[in-house]
This record gives sequence, structure tokens and C-alpha cells, in this order.
Amino acid sequence: MLAHLPLFAHPNPKRVGIEIIELNSKFQVLIIGGGDGGILREVLKHDTVEKVTMCEIDEMVIDVAKKFLPGMSCGFSHEKLDLYCGDGFEFLKNHKNEFDVIITDSSDPVGPAESLFGQSYYELLRDALKEDGILSSQGECPWLDLSLITTVIQNCRRLFPHAKYAVGSVPTYTSGLMGYVICANDKTRDVTTPARVLTDDQVKNLNLRFYNSEVHKAAFVLPQFVRNALEEKKE
Amino acid sequence: MLAHLPLFAHPNPKRVGIEIIELNSKFQVLIIGGGDGGILREVLKHDTVEKVTMCEIDEMVIDVAKKFLPGMSCGFSHEKLDLYCGDGFEFLKNHKNEFDVIITDSSDPVGPAESLFGQSYYELLRDALKEDGILSSQGECPWLDLSLITTVIQNCRRLFPHAKYAVGSVPTYTSGLMGYVICANDKTRDVTTPARVLTDDQVKNLNLRFYNSEVHKAAFVLPQFVRNALEEKKE
Repeated sequence: MLAHLPLFAHPNPKRVGIEIIELNSKFQVLIIGGGDGGILREVLKHDTVEKVTMCEIDEMVIDVAKKFLPGMSCGFSHEKLDLYCGDGFEFLKNHKNEFDVIITDSSDPVGPAESLFGQSYYELLRDALKEDGILSSQGECPWLDLSLITTVIQNCRRLFPHAKYAVGSVPTYTSGLMGYVICANDKTRDVTTPARVLTDDQVKNLNLRFYNSEVHKAAFVLPQFVRNALEEKKE
Repeated sequence: MLAHLPLFAHPNPKRVGIEIIELNSKFQVLIIGGGDGGILREVLKHDTVEKVTMCEIDEMVIDVAKKFLPGMSCGFSHEKLDLYCGDGFEFLKNHKNEFDVIITDSSDPVGPAESLFGQSYYELLRDALKEDGILSSQGECPWLDLSLITTVIQNCRRLFPHAKYAVGSVPTYTSGLMGYVICANDKTRDVTTPARVLTDDQVKNLNLRFYNSEVHKAAFVLPQFVRNALEEKKE
């Protein structure tokens, strides 16, 4: 979901003049974190993606994933990958207006990853995105971290014309509910609706076990206690 | 969700002739199990409910809930409640065509509650429902019990003209995802859409922390692996 929500929300065909021109294989994707390779594997399923840049601070996570999680880390040898081992903050400072999609696959906001939930990090993300870019970030669990989530979303609403929160079931995560922060630089982009709707056959061919186009929309329907906290009244 | 999905899916106003006549306080609800009182408390929030009959096999569960879970068990003293302590199977055999909504709040299908997931139990439920009745049953977790769920839904499709599966986040439940089996005796009834749509103010007045009318619809949007297992192709 962290990978597919922004990638399917981003329109692949771009309108140029009065014609729609398919810009296949033109997506520039950045992953911050994600050292286990799972997000990279899912990003590489999208044939709209030309290049994936990944910035992981801990090289050992990648080495361990390669050794013990071959099914998850299979993307590390892919020709589309540019891999950097270093700090995401520093990387972003040197890359402005470069990426169509940025995905932050961080650990919890305790210790090293705490800064990845702050306003200054989201400012860097915004500036590294192209003007029609979309980002997704690990958004913690509403049952456990609603106060933090509320702050993050409020910050994002100041920085982006379009900032939404989605949820999905992840049984390995504490409490089983995972949140996603999805923001767009383009105020006309509705990230809650996929720009490309998949048939069941396409879902099967992409080997998507959880995501489908209806799940995309339903992920943005929030339980009432979350909606109240984020002040997302019915439109 | 186990209580509100069937109760909000059931149309309160009934069409009689060419006029719509409000039949307030006419719902007859049956709860099988639910000894902790949580489902009873939620059912009693509906002013459309005239009487709640509850059949719990283990009286001690009720006593313990009254003693240690006062907030959850507050409905046991309600005047609308008829409480029976006994076997749900036996109770259902003696009650035909009586209830508008039946809710099965059982434990897991291991040991005593195993029979509450079998076809013969669902036959009894069908016969105890009125012809426009709706039932909901604890439907286990798709991450853990997909094979059992598939069998239950297949059985329900043989017994009911309308049988659906829904999911919701329950952090206290193993894996965090809970399933609900929702069936209607009336083939024209679409249980995936609430018959009464609530405003935010109504949700607040009913003290609903999770359910709202959009959550109702989204609950029936299934992850692809569940959809594949239940063979619910896009319509």
C-alpha cells in the first residue's frame, strides 16, 4: 500500500497541449529507507517506473535482507536501481524538483527515525518532488499514535495543497492497522482515487495480494475516531 | 461493526402500499452469545429497536462482565432486554420467522463455538429471521482463517439470496483484522450500503467511535487475496 497508493494515484499519461501522450517509463521514484527491499520490489512491478533511487542509512539492513529475505530483497540487483547508503535528510537537500513519487519507508518515530515525522523533513520532501509529484510516508497506527498522526497531517496541510491519510491492514504491525500519509504538490490531484484502475487480471499479473483499485479508495475512508481527530468532515 | 452493519443495513421505514410508513421501535433483535454485553450496548443505541432477546450459554460470562466490565455490560439492566441463558441452537429451533436482525457474537471456532460456524446453524438462523431480516455473525480473520471463511460464505450463498463478507480493524483481536458475515433473506436488500445514512452529528450523538456510513460501505471492499478466495469478482 505504501508503494501502490502514490504510484497508482499518479497519472501516467500526461496531457501535453490538447493531446494525451503516454509517457511510459518516465517515472522517477525515490525511496527513503526501506532497507528490507519490500517497497523496492513493489515499486519495480510498475512498468511506468524508469528509475528508482533508494537512500537507506543502514547498509547492514540491506545485507541482512539479501542474506535472509531473498524473496523480499530481490530488487536490489535490478538495473533500474540507484542505491545510496546515507542520510535521507542530506540526500534530499541536494535533490530539488527531481522525483515523481517519493516513498518514506521508515521505522517508528522513536530514536533514529524520529526526524522523519517532523515538519522540516516534509519540507525537504516537498522540494524534492516535481510539481505534479506525490509522496507517501509510513503514517503509524491510529489506535496507538493518534496524537502524533494529527500533528503530522496538520503539518502536511500547511505544506501541501493536498494531504490525506489512509489506513490498511498489516497483521505483523502492532495492533494490525497501518497508516499512510499521502500528499500531492498538485492541488487538482485527488490521491484517494486511482488514476489507473486495474482489472482483476492486471492485479493478478502484477502479483498484488492486497491492493486493488477499490481497496485504494476504501483505504482513505477513516474510522470515526480518526476522522474526528484529523477533522476530516464529510465533504 | 457486528451490531451496526446489520442494523443500519436494515431499512427502518417499510414501504406499505405506495406510502412509506415509519415503523419506529419495531425492530426485534436477537443476540446469540455476546455475554460481555458489548454488542447489547451497541444494539440499544438504536431507537429503532423495540426488543432485544439475548441467548448466552454461559451465565458466568455475564456475571463476570457485570462485575469487572461495567462500561461494557451496562445494557443488562435495560427494560428492552429479554435474557435467556442456554444453548443458541435449541433456542433457534423454537423461534421461527421472529427476528428482524440476528447477531451471532461467538468465540473462535475451536471447542464449544465450533458449531456456530456450520451450515446447520445458519439454516436455523435463516428460519428464525423474518423474510426481510438480516443477520451478522463473527466471521473470523482473513489473515488466519481464510479456508474456514470461504466454506462459511459458500454455505451462506446456498442458504441466502444475499450473502456478503466485510472486514474491520479490531486491535485486540489476533492480527488486528476482524471479519463479519452479513446475510439477508431479501434478495433485493444490498447490505453493503446503509439504509440510513448518518450525519457526523448523529454519529456523535450515538457515541459511535468506529462506525460511520462511509465505513459501512468500505468494510465490504475486500483485500485482493480475500476477494480471490471468496470469488467475488468485480460486478
